[in-house]
Amino acid sequence: MNTPVIEFFWDPASPYTWLAATQIGALATRTGATVSWRPFVLGKVFEATGNRAPATVAAKAKYLFKDLGRWAALYNQPLNFPKVFPVNSMTALRMACAANEAGEGGRFALAVMRAYWVDGVDISQPDALVSAMTAAGFDGAALFEASRQQAIKDVLRANTDDAIKRGAFGAPTFFVGSTMFWGNDRLVLLEDALRPAAQG
Amino acid sequence: MNTPVIEFFWDPASPYTWLAATQIGALATRTGATVSWRPFVLGKVFEATGNRAPATVAAKAKYLFKDLGRWAALYNQPLNFPKVFPVNSMTALRMACAANEAGEGGRFALAVMRAYWVDGVDISQPDALVSAMTAAGFDGAALFEASRQQAIKDVLRANTDDAIKRGAFGAPTFFVGSTMFWGNDRLVLLEDALRPAAQG
Repeated sequence: MNTPVIEFFWDPASPYTWLAATQIGALATRTGATVSWRPFVLGKVFEATGNRAPATVAAKAKYLFKDLGRWAALYNQPLNFPKVFPVNSMTALRMACAANEAGEGGRFALAVMRAYWVDGVDISQPDALVSAMTAAGFDGAALFEASRQQAIKDVLRANTDDAIKRGAFGAPTFFVGSTMFWGNDRLVLLEDALRPAAQG
Repeated sequence: MNTPVIEFFWDPASPYTWLAATQIGALATRTGATVSWRPFVLGKVFEATGNRAPATVAAKAKYLFKDLGRWAALYNQPLNFPKVFPVNSMTALRMACAANEAGEGGRFALAVMRAYWVDGVDISQPDALVSAMTAAGFDGAALFEASRQQAIKDVLRANTDDAIKRGAFGAPTFFVGSTMFWGNDRLVLLEDALRPAAQG
């Protein structure tokens, strides 16, 4: 029997991605799946698809701010809306690609999103980012050096292109094979699709 | 102890509203709440807030079409995407306001959404609409006559204005007191808010 793989396309700039990231490990355990953490550039996805951040409608922005707090409470997870938002997450994403190469993609994803969405670290600033990742147990300086290599930049671009090509238009985006799910609020459907009966 | 009231702002033009409508009765029973069915004009809400239908982004439209089928399957409810979409739901909404006056708002809401989202009735056409509602056990002709009265038109406009004023930007929209929830996918948060411990 094959172990199903959940590809998790994530960008730390997205609050719903942090919320989903707090749940995906337990979901994978419940369903016998593994998670493949794939950093991608949400801004490029918006550009390519003509989509836009939800907060561009004023009434929606006001609501979503409350909505985030409700999900955090439901999940019993911390979420402190950062002072710097939106944030340039390019360096963080490239470091995440380097962490992936080292087999630490999942732990890095959770740590960098926690730094931004819980501890309020301005992850657009290399010094703050490297410090936070070092404090979280990574070799922050080495990952930062790696993030400047063209090969790592190319991995991030390839991840982003792959997601767009397969239909992504926002974050978080999950794939199980060719089946796509978008949003923290679709974890229920993702889990439903991974139930043995649904796998035929 | 007061019975909590769920105000359900609905427009039959919205597929996620149909999905939510299939669930709200059981949710109300589980939480000891009652449902106040409030027809409103989604197009006017979009106009007022600068929001737009989700299907205006091509990649999103393609995804949402599948997403609707997944929710229908999860709920074990029928949903057949109608040939006529989007649809002008003004007459249906006015008839719904007339049905509300007669104390049959909930039954009418479910029947008219079923006519459109299951049976494919073109509810923008008065003849088809009246026939479908008559077949569902209403006095379709009487509701249609009532729908042409200024007082009924005013009720619909007031509902729409009320929703916009209170922060609505899409459908379905629910209120419990001043607390707003948007979307079929937020029924989990609505139910969480109605749990006794949360009402403290």
